[in-house]
Amino acid sequence: MKFNGTRKVKNVILLIGDGMGFSYTSGLRYFNHASQNGFMTPTIFDQYFVGSQSTYSLDRESNITDSAAAGTALATGYKTYNGALGLNIDQQAVPTVLEYAKFRGKSTGLVGTSQINHATLAAFAAHIESREQYDQIADDYLDERIEGNLKIDVMLGGGTSYFVRNDRNLVEEFVKNRFGYVSNLQELVTNKNEQLIGLFAPVELPKQIDRDSTVPSLTQMTKAALQRLQQNPNGFFLLVEGSQIDWAGHDNDIVGAMSEVKDFEAAFKAAIQFASDREDTIVIATADHSTGGMSIDRNDNYKWNPNVIKSITSTPFVIARRLHDTKDMTILKHHMPFSLHEEDLKTIKLTLDMAVEDTREALINIINHYSSTGWTTKGHTGEDVPVYAYGLNRHLFSGRMENSDIARILFQIMD
Amino acid sequence: MKFNGTRKVKNVILLIGDGMGFSYTSGLRYFNHASQNGFMTPTIFDQYFVGSQSTYSLDRESNITDSAAAGTALATGYKTYNGALGLNIDQQAVPTVLEYAKFRGKSTGLVGTSQINHATLAAFAAHIESREQYDQIADDYLDERIEGNLKIDVMLGGGTSYFVRNDRNLVEEFVKNRFGYVSNLQELVTNKNEQLIGLFAPVELPKQIDRDSTVPSLTQMTKAALQRLQQNPNGFFLLVEGSQIDWAGHDNDIVGAMSEVKDFEAAFKAAIQFASDREDTIVIATADHSTGGMSIDRNDNYKWNPNVIKSITSTPFVIARRLHDTKDMTILKHHMPFSLHEEDLKTIKLTLDMAVEDTREALINIINHYSSTGWTTKGHTGEDVPVYAYGLNRHLFSGRMENSDIARILFQIMD
Repeated sequence: MKFNGTRKVKNVILLIGDGMGFSYTSGLRYFNHASQNGFMTPTIFDQYFVGSQSTYSLDRESNITDSAAAGTALATGYKTYNGALGLNIDQQAVPTVLEYAKFRGKSTGLVGTSQINHATLAAFAAHIESREQYDQIADDYLDERIEGNLKIDVMLGGGTSYFVRNDRNLVEEFVKNRFGYVSNLQELVTNKNEQLIGLFAPVELPKQIDRDSTVPSLTQMTKAALQRLQQNPNGFFLLVEGSQIDWAGHDNDIVGAMSEVKDFEAAFKAAIQFASDREDTIVIATADHSTGGMSIDRNDNYKWNPNVIKSITSTPFVIARRLHDTKDMTILKHHMPFSLHEEDLKTIKLTLDMAVEDTREALINIINHYSSTGWTTKGHTGEDVPVYAYGLNRHLFSGRMENSDIARILFQIMD
Repeated sequence: MKFNGTRKVKNVILLIGDGMGFSYTSGLRYFNHASQNGFMTPTIFDQYFVGSQSTYSLDRESNITDSAAAGTALATGYKTYNGALGLNIDQQAVPTVLEYAKFRGKSTGLVGTSQINHATLAAFAAHIESREQYDQIADDYLDERIEGNLKIDVMLGGGTSYFVRNDRNLVEEFVKNRFGYVSNLQELVTNKNEQLIGLFAPVELPKQIDRDSTVPSLTQMTKAALQRLQQNPNGFFLLVEGSQIDWAGHDNDIVGAMSEVKDFEAAFKAAIQFASDREDTIVIATADHSTGGMSIDRNDNYKWNPNVIKSITSTPFVIARRLHDTKDMTILKHHMPFSLHEEDLKTIKLTLDMAVEDTREALINIINHYSSTGWTTKGHTGEDVPVYAYGLNRHLFSGRMENSDIARILFQIMD
């Protein structure tokens, strides 16, 4: 009923910040802010905030969702069990908004910073009992057709190890189907193919803060996708995932988390810029759940310290690896230029005889201490997540809704 | 500009759930829900969700607000330093929306479950350097006048120890000013005075789950206030605070937190019922900040267990006190009717030779374990908090705003 008389949208850009709960987007405002005092500059997200959605899945064992079930709800309109991709709770395949877009003659794209066959992205283009079946998901991207056509026109992210395998070379097969293939930023920028697969890492891309100039940002991938998809006179559906906000959350790594939220914020900005030139496009940014029970401040400090986080040059993992490679504790001054206590240095030094993982863990604990960042879990949490929207029909996403409502509205309003 | 042509509101009901961040209202949905599976029934809050607000204060030392600074922002439109009541950052007194309502000839009310001179409530009716000056705040409620009139017409909550003192008996003085005075539910229900002070405890009221039939609920106090305030043909301003959501958060006590959020939800429902019969009233419910870094789930369980919380009959404090009074461990089966491990019982038993506080702490830890509730601090956290609105001009509170914008809008739209 709600949709009677609604003007249909030609283009849909859905951005999912994996794990990006309210504490992450509020944290970004503190992080972007120059000083500790005075009013904080709104983030790009702030001015487009319209609502929130509830993320719980329908699982026998769990009442906290995983990314597969949440991705499936956002993609198909069906809440399902944890681990399921594109299947309802009875394990029946249900159509996704990406597939429906293709069925309506639109172009489609998947862009992310994880391997492009990872859960959230896969929920929009595969129908598989378990998210762990990475090879089969990659196969589905090529083998499952919509009325004889390939399902996805642009795929950009990581994942060569799943697409170029001993048993099958999917990249070659995509190229045979007239796709371009690119594997670094230079190639991405110069490529002219309208259909494109870009794989910039064996599995996931480095986090934004760790990237060198050969690896595209989420914004660069988003722009490359939009450039191609907008050629289709019938419009397009593009999914953009800030995949590793969640991964940083699982690691309780606030440096990685802020790196990835910033990367995602810039991609959202690029999507809005695209849509602002036209009146036929909806841009939605949301999360699939929150991760880590992250809190801005901990232990009764009443002072979260984003300047500590901003001063750090690389993720704890990269710093830990360099410490192990060089065995040189003095490089810490460069990577973490704030005053560490004697005790901290001792703790870190001790881990240099252990695994890189141990050093990373030590660095993470120290950074959480100095920034006063709290965490309660290495998994997900159950609070509602924000919904941001811009463009045609944005009002339909206002208020509080279920995650599955996002897909249900998209099915209704797509031209 | 935004307000040109806006129809002015006659009555304002502002409800503040102290400390009630998104994890609390999302948690309430899990808590209210009957089973672990299937769709969750929306809370009363859910259908009125319109926006969010940023809570940070303007403090030299802290970038996480306290309740005084947040209350002042919500009351006056000025962000200020932590601890300030009704003063801007230069320590100048600034008018509150309650005072402005009185200036416009409306009736005014303060209702809460803490002492009624506690920070959030006090921020609307006092101008004092420090929230700790409880006696002076109570004095201000009587001594500060708006054009010769008493500032507050209905005050309901706790606080006899601040209002009936050796140096001054404010209750007597209010009664001399034609106020009624009540001190239990029976008296509240039968009293007919239009101006009323009701103090139902020396300091704070018991939490909802611990109340006996002599103590009114937040809903009963809200209804009693509305009954009186609505007599004024010029309308009214009523502030209702769910004061102890925050206190439970400071204690990391999820039983108390859910008790108080439910109490607040019912008061919000009563306010909406009042407004739904008329077209001249706005009802807003929000929080001043979130408390405790509470998370729905912890330690990678992927299963928050509200049924554990629901099964518990009293707050951990009351259970601890009864254990100390009786030295009878068998009463635990009645108060916490789920299977406790041998180790838990040992831990609790050990504390019976210590302070009540130690027993309470042990119970809280055990309940957080079995319910899988996470916490990161005994203080506040910095993430944005929800805004719910119903009635005339509710759209003005949609989207993301600063806490101070709430007051700024109220000044504009009050008749």
